[in-house]
Amino acid sequence: MDYDFNKWMSDYRVISTVGLNEEGGLDRLAFTDYDFAARTELLNRAYGLRLQCYLDAAENLWFSKPGTDPDLPPLLIGSHLDTVPNGGKYDGVLGVMAGFQVMRYLVDNKISHRRTVEMVAFSCEESSRFNLSTIGSKLACGFTTPEKLKNYKDSQGHTPVEFLARLRYSPESLEERREHLKNIYGFIELHIEQGPVLESAGTDIGIVESIAAPIRLKLDIIGHTDHSGACPMDLRHDALTAAAALITEIERLGREESVNKSVATVGKINVPHQALNVVPGRCEIFVDIRGIRRDSMERIRDGMRNFVCGLEKERGVKVEETLLSDESPVPLDHSLGEIIERNCRKTGLSCRWMPSGAGHDAMNVAKLAPTAMIFIPCVGGVSHSLLENVLEKDLRNSIRILYEVVMDICG
Amino acid sequence: MDYDFNKWMSDYRVISTVGLNEEGGLDRLAFTDYDFAARTELLNRAYGLRLQCYLDAAENLWFSKPGTDPDLPPLLIGSHLDTVPNGGKYDGVLGVMAGFQVMRYLVDNKISHRRTVEMVAFSCEESSRFNLSTIGSKLACGFTTPEKLKNYKDSQGHTPVEFLARLRYSPESLEERREHLKNIYGFIELHIEQGPVLESAGTDIGIVESIAAPIRLKLDIIGHTDHSGACPMDLRHDALTAAAALITEIERLGREESVNKSVATVGKINVPHQALNVVPGRCEIFVDIRGIRRDSMERIRDGMRNFVCGLEKERGVKVEETLLSDESPVPLDHSLGEIIERNCRKTGLSCRWMPSGAGHDAMNVAKLAPTAMIFIPCVGGVSHSLLENVLEKDLRNSIRILYEVVMDICG
Repeated sequence: MDYDFNKWMSDYRVISTVGLNEEGGLDRLAFTDYDFAARTELLNRAYGLRLQCYLDAAENLWFSKPGTDPDLPPLLIGSHLDTVPNGGKYDGVLGVMAGFQVMRYLVDNKISHRRTVEMVAFSCEESSRFNLSTIGSKLACGFTTPEKLKNYKDSQGHTPVEFLARLRYSPESLEERREHLKNIYGFIELHIEQGPVLESAGTDIGIVESIAAPIRLKLDIIGHTDHSGACPMDLRHDALTAAAALITEIERLGREESVNKSVATVGKINVPHQALNVVPGRCEIFVDIRGIRRDSMERIRDGMRNFVCGLEKERGVKVEETLLSDESPVPLDHSLGEIIERNCRKTGLSCRWMPSGAGHDAMNVAKLAPTAMIFIPCVGGVSHSLLENVLEKDLRNSIRILYEVVMDICG
Repeated sequence: MDYDFNKWMSDYRVISTVGLNEEGGLDRLAFTDYDFAARTELLNRAYGLRLQCYLDAAENLWFSKPGTDPDLPPLLIGSHLDTVPNGGKYDGVLGVMAGFQVMRYLVDNKISHRRTVEMVAFSCEESSRFNLSTIGSKLACGFTTPEKLKNYKDSQGHTPVEFLARLRYSPESLEERREHLKNIYGFIELHIEQGPVLESAGTDIGIVESIAAPIRLKLDIIGHTDHSGACPMDLRHDALTAAAALITEIERLGREESVNKSVATVGKINVPHQALNVVPGRCEIFVDIRGIRRDSMERIRDGMRNFVCGLEKERGVKVEETLLSDESPVPLDHSLGEIIERNCRKTGLSCRWMPSGAGHDAMNVAKLAPTAMIFIPCVGGVSHSLLENVLEKDLRNSIRILYEVVMDICG
């Protein structure tokens, strides 16, 4: 049974490559012309299937295929269509298109089901444009407001609110969506893993038990600028060598907490006014601590702070900390996960429970309704890159597991 | 006798602060508009004194005040006008302006001298922009060519050659300058010490016996880009944490060779496409190793290379090394130094012989003609920093000692 795979692929190729650039990456950033073009392609196909379509004031697209029993709360599936700059063909769009295929398969094959199946393509999931992630689902869930979003700007100074044309004539749609989400049976988001765990373990499907939350910090290390030739080693207060010691310690702390599935990363480093012949007097580093256990994340943060105290004394530098975000991990619904596990077993797919290191729209919905996530392996664990890739067998598995789970719940 | 100090200061304040930024530092990087503006200020003043002015194809500025005996080879004094990013008001420009004041004092007071006095403001002394130092004097001395310089690029991809407009119509001026330098009496460069030795010893003047040479390397660390939330610690090939380990080791090697007066510095670090939520896949660092003993410098370089081998195996990264420069320490002319010493004694200034940890244009000229350097204390030894400072008494001593030495040789 191939769930009309070839028909799916011909649509997948079109929608997943809207915004292709010369390098082969995708620039389908939220609320750009490419993003709107991809939604239009999806909408046209949904109209063709005579699905019920709905756009809320956050530009989230909702589709519905009513079941035979209108009293049963609907099941929602879906993900997002926008990409990071120079992104790949699977992050987000796979979850949307797998959901779409499940609905098309039901329509094309006139398969009857009792529970209504709904699908959503959330808007602006990636943080790349406005330095804030999951804007569409945050608005629909009531975790932010158009007013608050005016503080977030892209590199050209535009706020996300400028693109929400429907806000003017249907602002109530956001409150309506929040009420709706509180009353659904549950939400299932299918997504590529964006990490190497499934591939390296040879596992077909990941069932997400919890979505990691980030604690994000900026550390400014203030030492003393000196001439790299004329200042002896023992008279230096080098901000970069201090940062190097700190980066090494942050990695060590992250490794120590690996048993609790936490990670710690320094993703950005800046030495202002840097020059080959200058002992760096300042250095800033950005730290991203994630985990599914709050105590483990806090041990990394506290260990880092302890190390900083020693560093300041030992090297005569000063370290200033700025908290950028501090979120708590979001556990997902275990019963819904068990339904996924049961269907993996039924269809002969191997599966494992695992955390999601990356954030997703599911984080928001999980606070209103039972929520689960299905992970599919991606090649080399690569994501947020034009090199993002998924094997055909895993694409096939995506539709298969999602269809089976939907039918188990709604059939 | 104050050598028209106040007149000098009013000019010094103008020229030394061209390129002042909001923080109070100077951004007079080589071949920027600010750099050209500072030269123009100097040229205008030299024209006012009716000095003979000459610009060669390396954009070095040459000034000449003929002596009464044209058969005597001229004495050359000078330094450079460009700064590091966010640099100070004394590095380079003090030597140029002290030289200019000596010439102005001779003109204003109609002081006759037998030997011609020449002055030079070499272009692009700092390595900050193109990762190569003393480009102007290297070209004039014939130690590099415009062709070779095309391999050096600034952060925007510009090569130094793009700024050498005169190359098109007077390429022969470089060869001419080389012949000229071979035939001068000698070259004296006055400069701030850029280190803490003179100040902490309470000595007025340093006479440089030898200039430390840099070995400079760029190291490209190639790991693997991953999602900072989704990639577990043990599956990472983080280029930045690898760089941190390397920076720590380079510092350790530099400390170990401190007994031989060597130093090792990582002054620049770049993580391309860096983002808070991405495990860095690439990182480049720039290493500056200096000393007055070649064997000690080589031990640092070799130690670093050994460490890199281990790092590649241990962390699954690849490190590519590019040699940017590899120079040997340069001894200066002892007889010329003795003339400086004699004039210190005559004018009641304390002095000491010392090495220069920093590189200078004098390194290049020393290979063609007898060369000496005069060091002046700077506050706290601070240099290559907006905090660079020189006490007024030391500014006065700068002009005094330079004038007395020039008149001893040319009078």
